[in-house]
Amino acid sequence: MLLSGLSWGSSPCIVAAVAWEAGKPLVIEEVEVAPPQANEVRLKVLYTALCHTDVYFWEAKGQTPVFPRIFGHEAAGIVESVGEGVTGLVPGDHVLPVFTGECKECRHCKSKESNMCDLLRINTDRGVMLNDGQSRFSIKGKPIYHFVGTSTFSEYTVVHVGCLAKINPAAPLDKVCILSCGVSTGLGATLNVAKPAKGSTVAIFGLGAVGLSAAEGARIAGASRIIGVDLNPKRFHEAKKFGVTEFVNPKDYDKPVQEVIADMTNGGVDRSVECTGNINAMISAFECVHDGWGVAVLVGVPNKDDSFKSHPLNFLNERTLKGTFFGNYKPRTDLPEVVEMYMRKELELEKFITHEVTLSDINKAFDYMLNGESLRCIIKME
Amino acid sequence: MLLSGLSWGSSPCIVAAVAWEAGKPLVIEEVEVAPPQANEVRLKVLYTALCHTDVYFWEAKGQTPVFPRIFGHEAAGIVESVGEGVTGLVPGDHVLPVFTGECKECRHCKSKESNMCDLLRINTDRGVMLNDGQSRFSIKGKPIYHFVGTSTFSEYTVVHVGCLAKINPAAPLDKVCILSCGVSTGLGATLNVAKPAKGSTVAIFGLGAVGLSAAEGARIAGASRIIGVDLNPKRFHEAKKFGVTEFVNPKDYDKPVQEVIADMTNGGVDRSVECTGNINAMISAFECVHDGWGVAVLVGVPNKDDSFKSHPLNFLNERTLKGTFFGNYKPRTDLPEVVEMYMRKELELEKFITHEVTLSDINKAFDYMLNGESLRCIIKME
Repeated sequence: MLLSGLSWGSSPCIVAAVAWEAGKPLVIEEVEVAPPQANEVRLKVLYTALCHTDVYFWEAKGQTPVFPRIFGHEAAGIVESVGEGVTGLVPGDHVLPVFTGECKECRHCKSKESNMCDLLRINTDRGVMLNDGQSRFSIKGKPIYHFVGTSTFSEYTVVHVGCLAKINPAAPLDKVCILSCGVSTGLGATLNVAKPAKGSTVAIFGLGAVGLSAAEGARIAGASRIIGVDLNPKRFHEAKKFGVTEFVNPKDYDKPVQEVIADMTNGGVDRSVECTGNINAMISAFECVHDGWGVAVLVGVPNKDDSFKSHPLNFLNERTLKGTFFGNYKPRTDLPEVVEMYMRKELELEKFITHEVTLSDINKAFDYMLNGESLRCIIKME
Repeated sequence: MLLSGLSWGSSPCIVAAVAWEAGKPLVIEEVEVAPPQANEVRLKVLYTALCHTDVYFWEAKGQTPVFPRIFGHEAAGIVESVGEGVTGLVPGDHVLPVFTGECKECRHCKSKESNMCDLLRINTDRGVMLNDGQSRFSIKGKPIYHFVGTSTFSEYTVVHVGCLAKINPAAPLDKVCILSCGVSTGLGATLNVAKPAKGSTVAIFGLGAVGLSAAEGARIAGASRIIGVDLNPKRFHEAKKFGVTEFVNPKDYDKPVQEVIADMTNGGVDRSVECTGNINAMISAFECVHDGWGVAVLVGVPNKDDSFKSHPLNFLNERTLKGTFFGNYKPRTDLPEVVEMYMRKELELEKFITHEVTLSDINKAFDYMLNGESLRCIIKME
């Protein structure tokens, strides 16, 4: 059906956006995609979206540069073919590829608490498949590298079966594609880790897509007050759609933002979620929670040389600090239910989608993000 | 019955150990004890024990000196008389006085998570009763100050009703008296906060009375491995009685103890409890827990100028750091059940009690502790 126009030999040519060099515009190229090997799945990507993580590794400032490479990791697609040993997926299944996986065999996968799979945990330096250490993408025999095991800026891609969540085929792929990274990360940070009780107060640091997803989680949980913290006052208006009730711009105060929030909330919020990755915001997010019961959750990724610092009495006064990775969702086990939350209209995804382009215009998506204009730009593959 | 030998006028004379000056031996004195005022209870102390906190404030190094003062806060006794408005306690009831209270009315008391009562939270600087800002102890009209609202180095004392846990009258007071501070602090840190699953691995930093209580909690929870960490190898032998299965002396290794523990446990322990108050031990206790699910709990009290430091990625890799105060036990609500744990022989208290003296020999208890000879020295009041 969807594959009817393609002649699937061993390595058919399809179209993909290739990053040849760090920071240079992507180039639409004809790329060969090899068949899936053991425990791999080849899928047709229908929609993908641009996330900051793509931009970060495309810029490759201070990161190991791995080029030429096909970026992209927030996406939705349909299984085209499966390799040896793949169970639970057949051609035609609707799936979300995820940058981190779930082997279901390791200590992490067997733990109820962790989603940091030993085998398939995110690896941003690896540009090849686990099975044979080779890429499945090539142009005239020259390998093009993978990105976080997904490489969804391509009409077809090959992904480890452990990195694919099978979802309800009735779900609109142009919406639920954004659940495969940022939205789930923020949503899960609140719903799975911070776990605010109904009626509680929540502070969200950073009102980008991840922070707004964390706010959406607080809204769904029934928080009575959601305090958004951001240095950019332009973000405040949009944040209201995500349940944010009050706004704090740290630039407007002489005292630390944790003190501002404590003053607003009779001693501190019940929960906070940090989505900027800025070390001072992390410290503020921790110190702004109420003693006795406050829980702060770190989501934003810090710099290599950062050091979290706080007086230990802030902990001893019964505050908790936790970190989370991908909102503590186990990709295969938990994402299908997040899709159902959207289907039941509990979770609203449309408000995250500010732009749409086709694959040939993918560099516009980069511009929108770099200019701070977009929350999520959907890239349509056909 | 127990009060038959005393003539209870308004302020009868009884015997107490008075600290006249910082660091000087206590002096047994005849002291008048005024009747309980509103929401206060006068009780006969039968047994008390010496805790490091008494010694710390008696030494008054860097602390506000409040003298003359009657120390003591780990104790058990019997209600002699109650002031106006006291409900739930009558003369003859067996009670544990506690250095921190539970008013049952404030936000903390109403929270399921907190035990840090706004009204009756520990206050080490206050030497008087809340009701009128006066002391109930005097010698020839000169006030003798209270300590943390308990002052149990006295045959009789006056305590706010919110700081008294009514316990099973069948419980032996010479044993359960140690539940009113250190043992509950360590035990609760493990059972209420760290919550190790059956079969899990636990590291305990500091093998004094609190650390051994935390180990006892891990033993009761069914931990498969309990790793004790202490700089003093003499503590290792005794710790075995408390379920400690392995010992690590950081002095024996060139690398940080968190790395030693990670090597011993395939990446880290499931839970750790820090009972020394040393800032480096706090950092090690956090960094020695496994990513994905590890929880570290801080119990030991730090210095004023300490700063907890760790790379934020240690949090983002799904580790949790929490602090606790009095093992998160609400004194009035929860301590009766801890006494029952002892009565059911689940919790073993005898092994904590290494010495016994009478009140007239109380200075020997200080010597035992200062020489590191004792875990708990029981002081018999009669």
